[in-house]
Amino acid sequence: MVREAVILGAGLGSRLKGMTAAMPKGFIEIGGVPMVERSVRKLIEKGIEKIYIGTGHCAEHYERLAARYPCIETVPNPQYASTGSMRTLYEVARKVSGDFLLLESDLIYDDIGLFVLLNDQRRDVLLASGATKSGDEVYLQADGSGRLVSLSKKREELSGIDGELVGITKLSRAALDRMCAYSEKTFVSNPKLEYEAAMAAVSTPERPIAIRKIEYYAWREVDDESHLAMARTEVWPRIAESESLRAVRREVLLNPGPATTTDSVKYAQVAADICPREKEFGEVMGWISRELSAFVGDPDKYETVLFAGSGTAADEVMISSVVPKDGKMVIVDNGAYGTRMAKIASVYGIPTVVMKSPAYRRLDLRELERLIDAEKPTHVGVVYHETTTGLLNPVPEIGKLCRARGVDTIVDAVSAFAAIPIDMERDCIDFMASTSNKNIQGMAGVGFVFCEKSKLERTASVPMRNYYLNLYDQYAHFKKTMQTRFTPPVQILYALRQAIIETKQETIPGRYARITSCWKILMEACRRLGLKNLVAEEDQSHIIAAILEPEIKGYDFEAFHDYCRESSFTIYPGKLSDANTFRIANMGDIRPEEMERFSGVLESYLKKAAAGK
Amino acid sequence: MVREAVILGAGLGSRLKGMTAAMPKGFIEIGGVPMVERSVRKLIEKGIEKIYIGTGHCAEHYERLAARYPCIETVPNPQYASTGSMRTLYEVARKVSGDFLLLESDLIYDDIGLFVLLNDQRRDVLLASGATKSGDEVYLQADGSGRLVSLSKKREELSGIDGELVGITKLSRAALDRMCAYSEKTFVSNPKLEYEAAMAAVSTPERPIAIRKIEYYAWREVDDESHLAMARTEVWPRIAESESLRAVRREVLLNPGPATTTDSVKYAQVAADICPREKEFGEVMGWISRELSAFVGDPDKYETVLFAGSGTAADEVMISSVVPKDGKMVIVDNGAYGTRMAKIASVYGIPTVVMKSPAYRRLDLRELERLIDAEKPTHVGVVYHETTTGLLNPVPEIGKLCRARGVDTIVDAVSAFAAIPIDMERDCIDFMASTSNKNIQGMAGVGFVFCEKSKLERTASVPMRNYYLNLYDQYAHFKKTMQTRFTPPVQILYALRQAIIETKQETIPGRYARITSCWKILMEACRRLGLKNLVAEEDQSHIIAAILEPEIKGYDFEAFHDYCRESSFTIYPGKLSDANTFRIANMGDIRPEEMERFSGVLESYLKKAAAGK
Repeated sequence: MVREAVILGAGLGSRLKGMTAAMPKGFIEIGGVPMVERSVRKLIEKGIEKIYIGTGHCAEHYERLAARYPCIETVPNPQYASTGSMRTLYEVARKVSGDFLLLESDLIYDDIGLFVLLNDQRRDVLLASGATKSGDEVYLQADGSGRLVSLSKKREELSGIDGELVGITKLSRAALDRMCAYSEKTFVSNPKLEYEAAMAAVSTPERPIAIRKIEYYAWREVDDESHLAMARTEVWPRIAESESLRAVRREVLLNPGPATTTDSVKYAQVAADICPREKEFGEVMGWISRELSAFVGDPDKYETVLFAGSGTAADEVMISSVVPKDGKMVIVDNGAYGTRMAKIASVYGIPTVVMKSPAYRRLDLRELERLIDAEKPTHVGVVYHETTTGLLNPVPEIGKLCRARGVDTIVDAVSAFAAIPIDMERDCIDFMASTSNKNIQGMAGVGFVFCEKSKLERTASVPMRNYYLNLYDQYAHFKKTMQTRFTPPVQILYALRQAIIETKQETIPGRYARITSCWKILMEACRRLGLKNLVAEEDQSHIIAAILEPEIKGYDFEAFHDYCRESSFTIYPGKLSDANTFRIANMGDIRPEEMERFSGVLESYLKKAAAGK
Repeated sequence: MVREAVILGAGLGSRLKGMTAAMPKGFIEIGGVPMVERSVRKLIEKGIEKIYIGTGHCAEHYERLAARYPCIETVPNPQYASTGSMRTLYEVARKVSGDFLLLESDLIYDDIGLFVLLNDQRRDVLLASGATKSGDEVYLQADGSGRLVSLSKKREELSGIDGELVGITKLSRAALDRMCAYSEKTFVSNPKLEYEAAMAAVSTPERPIAIRKIEYYAWREVDDESHLAMARTEVWPRIAESESLRAVRREVLLNPGPATTTDSVKYAQVAADICPREKEFGEVMGWISRELSAFVGDPDKYETVLFAGSGTAADEVMISSVVPKDGKMVIVDNGAYGTRMAKIASVYGIPTVVMKSPAYRRLDLRELERLIDAEKPTHVGVVYHETTTGLLNPVPEIGKLCRARGVDTIVDAVSAFAAIPIDMERDCIDFMASTSNKNIQGMAGVGFVFCEKSKLERTASVPMRNYYLNLYDQYAHFKKTMQTRFTPPVQILYALRQAIIETKQETIPGRYARITSCWKILMEACRRLGLKNLVAEEDQSHIIAAILEPEIKGYDFEAFHDYCRESSFTIYPGKLSDANTFRIANMGDIRPEEMERFSGVLESYLKKAAAGK
């Protein structure tokens, strides 16, 4: 799996003087976005975790870019003014750990080219196109097996032309090493060595760099004014159209999960078939597990165990696997999900005391404290964020209270994780469940349990209450074999990997800030339209709002739902028996402007209903 | 969701006289496949369940095509020689039940066009392209909102040109009704009315037919010799390349599931986000459930209940949910999966007698009979096809034996279903588990249980042994609400839907014949290479072969595995403690020529190993 990319961005761009005197070439905007920034986005969308940019001329532009994209690391080529692109690559090479994509910075290209390279069985492959007639072609010559033999800007130097160099290549670490070794010998006589020349030099029949030609590929490198004009008027429209054809219809899900996903998460599911018992896939799962842990704590202290199933499956994993035979639970029930936790405990005959609390009001911590002191449970179970109403429970306070008494905490964070910043150590959470399809913005099908490692190890002695959903066995088997006990949902895990990559870019505090912006827009709309919230704003999670149904004669939830759906918004019914609410979640890849648009739809429906239409 | 397509194939194709005197135009081959057949394949790949073809001229060609594609139904237009395409559509209209795709028969096109139409929020949309300069354009005129206003072959008849008609349209049943009503009034004066003219006539501002233009679309209609030349030399290469760029690297999984899938199943996962509690998605799940049942029995008598999870989850669902409190099981254990069934029963404390039998030898039915008579279980559990060894158990015989004694059967058919033809009624199977990711050729993440309905209803009284994996609750909740109890893996279900569509095309007996062909090739290779099978050929399932590791000094499973993987074949280790085997499954979308190629890889590895390389 290719996880890294290198962008060569050190060059002077001297043929575009006016524009590039104070700016690297890659920052020229086409279609409203700097070329290199669009390239960065495409790389992230295709599952690249880390992007190294070799910088030189006006490097500060790249520093600013790196500040906005956590996956970017800049690596300066101090001699950029007097060297060629191979020197820049040579500087970056020490950072690269495995197979990687190598790109020039001044390119626009159809992202299908990235897919084609990543999808190619071969590890060293250079992307080529048919004739561009750009006037600045680097021609490629291949042998009968498609290996790069030679390249030149001069047709006459080659005995045959088998494509034009695009400037996007997939390389193995080994090929990079050979290029670096070659360049060490060459720099003395030719400090201006270009990376493509080094590639051609190291492509041998035994260790070939292959050419993958796309005859009708839409791309352009921008070296001078005429290229720029061509890029803007001819190439960019083709790229924009081609990519838009693959874009998936935007449906904004305002239901509390599965949440709206990005197209890149959707397309991450489209991957070559793989047996999940392969080491390669074990590494993907190991990475997912570790990265999930890192969102909530130190991955050396906290372990994430993956299961096929929904958030409820993960809840059942915790309750059935963690509480020992002589254990006892206190479960906070102030909504449907607290009720569900209690139900699960009861199915397994686990002695449980349920603390009922209203679904719309802040939990009384002192009452809970008294109950814990009276009942002396081994475990306290609580829902972090009640999906029923959007009510936030004071989990950090509950955690401290339990920690002080030696009571372990079991937290359903299904719809809190990856939105609300959680630190399991600080918040005294021992076991915590969530799912792939809510705030982490992946697809439904994977539940996971975050565990304090030493406590997880201790669950080895808890007798099995079921087989499939057993926490310790799942953990121990994976630890030993890098395989799950049972067939995992492979494609959902690929999507989850992509969702994690994107979450790391946005960061969880960044995501919660976006969610809060959307929520504020919704609350403002409620005030404007006279709609009342079930839960006081200060006790709301910002993720879900339970809004009281308006007392308008013409109001009807089904009609309201269908009206919203016509504008591609999916809303959700309430789940309380004692209050009529509808629910709006701003979970998932939802932007403030979409919540603004939804506010408009809400307003127009209410007008329509009031008019009895 | 669009489930149907109509192809208009009645025309005479008079401008291609020489070729179409005895053949409909759609049967002209481009790229080695008749245009209309390629179109049919693309429609199936995009999730179309039923294709109606309106026929006329040389209809017998379409009849033969229909015989090879179960989803095709031909509908004759008896007046084809004297009428236009609208008459043909009119004849087909009575078959169409919902939204559908309407296509001309003489087209080649990039299948991205189908994706774009199906993905469009609007229900009535016509596909258009930029200028083709084909000399036979149907020009389209739109209004400011993109609605089809008028069309003509004569530019001068239009006040503006907003695209060219491709001949692919998505239409609602309501739009079709309007077109039919319009044509009833028009046929008298104009029997040669074309369907596109009827479309233009019914496209009003209130009920628009929208134009979706793809500026750089690769497509061609073939009306005359010059079109044909253009299609073959200019358009087809572009289409072929464009589609090949989206093709996913072929990895042939010879492990026993997850199995090799088609690209169309992979891409079925890429769909607009949807809340799975929407009625639309409930219908998808209802359809899946019913179609799965139909593979193994009468869907009015057998119910399929879907769960998130693997095949083992489905096994656990059965055992934990079906056996009553005072029940008792006899479980046949002749492999790892039988052992697993017994383990599940033991976790729940279900009284169980295990009948051990060798993993490599046919089960002794009489011994089982004696055991059943002695132990008087309420349920017998058995694995249909032991993935451990490829051994087939005599389930139909076991079923009859149980039925005669009033004992219910619980069958793990995880790796048998959708390959081996099973008839639950004939084979006396009461409950049977399988999964989305084996012979049905979908993605991992869904397990399902087939149930005899009256017995399923009776499980209502079995006390819950777990929560998430409870059969009755899952069944009853879906029946009542058309929603699953917990968030289902949406994308895996879309993939499963596509896998079912493709299974219906191949048919289960057809699939088993293909599997058997592959197996024969493998057995022949074993004989040639002196490799011995653990199980006698007559007791093998044909789906998995456990092959004894060769006694060659240089043989090493890991090296063998890696060698095969370089050629994109994934093989699988054995799972027996008392015999060293490796396993080859020909589960999934594997073709005989691929098994031939694998035989070559196997041979060359053995030579290499013997030579100590």
